[in-house]
Amino acid sequence: MVFTTSDIELAGRLADAAGKAIRPFFRAEHGLEMKGDDSPVTKADRAGEAAMRSLIVAERPMDAIIGEEEETREGSSGRTWVLDPIDGTRAFIAGRPIFGTLIALLDNGWPVLGVIDQPILGERWIGATGFQTMLNGKPARTRRCRELNEALLATTSPALFDDDQLHAFEHLDSAVRSTVLGGDCYNYGCVASGHLDIVVEAQLKLHDFAALIPVVEGAGGRMCDWQGDPLHADSAGEVIAAGDSARIDDILEALACRGH
Amino acid sequence: MVFTTSDIELAGRLADAAGKAIRPFFRAEHGLEMKGDDSPVTKADRAGEAAMRSLIVAERPMDAIIGEEEETREGSSGRTWVLDPIDGTRAFIAGRPIFGTLIALLDNGWPVLGVIDQPILGERWIGATGFQTMLNGKPARTRRCRELNEALLATTSPALFDDDQLHAFEHLDSAVRSTVLGGDCYNYGCVASGHLDIVVEAQLKLHDFAALIPVVEGAGGRMCDWQGDPLHADSAGEVIAAGDSARIDDILEALACRGH
Repeated sequence: MVFTTSDIELAGRLADAAGKAIRPFFRAEHGLEMKGDDSPVTKADRAGEAAMRSLIVAERPMDAIIGEEEETREGSSGRTWVLDPIDGTRAFIAGRPIFGTLIALLDNGWPVLGVIDQPILGERWIGATGFQTMLNGKPARTRRCRELNEALLATTSPALFDDDQLHAFEHLDSAVRSTVLGGDCYNYGCVASGHLDIVVEAQLKLHDFAALIPVVEGAGGRMCDWQGDPLHADSAGEVIAAGDSARIDDILEALACRGH
Repeated sequence: MVFTTSDIELAGRLADAAGKAIRPFFRAEHGLEMKGDDSPVTKADRAGEAAMRSLIVAERPMDAIIGEEEETREGSSGRTWVLDPIDGTRAFIAGRPIFGTLIALLDNGWPVLGVIDQPILGERWIGATGFQTMLNGKPARTRRCRELNEALLATTSPALFDDDQLHAFEHLDSAVRSTVLGGDCYNYGCVASGHLDIVVEAQLKLHDFAALIPVVEGAGGRMCDWQGDPLHADSAGEVIAAGDSARIDDILEALACRGH
């Protein structure tokens, strides 16, 4: 067993600590300090990560830690905590309460535990290998999607695609029922809860996608890269989430047209 | 005086009634009934509009009513209520609690009173000519934006632009600091509260934009079309909102490149 229920419990306390650190900065920005070292979002990011790191160092001293803000902490357990205090920085800055705190636990590079936490709304998806994904203590389940043309697709921004990826995405976009933009990690929570069918993105870093996988897969969905391969610490950042795993082949086929 | 404080009070009760009708349908969709006549979002739209119409008919029988779901009701007062129970249908369907109910009162075609209500989060912006815009009873104020390259820009979806509009938008996009997608009417509330600087959209119908104007302008911002003209019932649907009215000329200049 690479993780225990006490790791799930710790992940919840990490999210509590990050949320407490982040909340005072939400909508605190007024005027010109939108970004930069002293901006509220940067302060919130740093405070959120520091709060989570100090808990992990105290309680799991052998585990490695990868975060956006501070340097990687090496470990000796084969386990790595991957932290993104604020996924959806632009949403945070814009005042939208659908950014998220992402917490993942990796076993030799494979995500086995994930949390998507929305600290303003008090929504928390927790997923772990072998467990049913829960949203605030209630089971979250993806929905069935019988045909691609019934699917509701989301992506945060087409600006994150290169030309070939954009071409491929547009092909998928034209095959689904409807597409919604924005959303960041919140989209993956909505897949897990059966409101969205597909999310397709690119340029995601490990800290952007690691936590999403146990959440989506523990709710009945599937995540993979644009070649259909499982996502791992070394993946290139092309990400697919499907609520109904039976639609993965259709999605891969639609995306395969890139460059043509 | 084309409206009184009792109209503002009525607008609040309209939002209450719509929210009560809409809330049971949010995240109620699971499975395949995403759209169509019997989908939760369609039911919520109809129930929301019916709830608002019955209050207006009872309390302002001489006023006209324009809504998305039912036929226009003629009036004799020169005043028109413009209703959009769910602005941001895709956000609603996708499970994002940042759609909104829009309520406007027009005097001979000019918006003089507007409400943006988010019934899941319990957030309500109310604006009216001559009054300070309020968010849940507290003053909402736009922020200063000294240069276009400091601005945070939002648009719901570039897919709503035609080729010329997209070209123009991309020119503006390249001139601002950052752009965030999605958001629908919620973006205009965030402009009013000083979190976003600019929203630029096209293809907006009267029921999409009428309520936004008193909210944004009563918070210190300005709204106009892509020629800089004030928005009216007959406007073509190209909409600009700027938190700092001093940036309007820069925005118009950036958008003027369309077709070149």
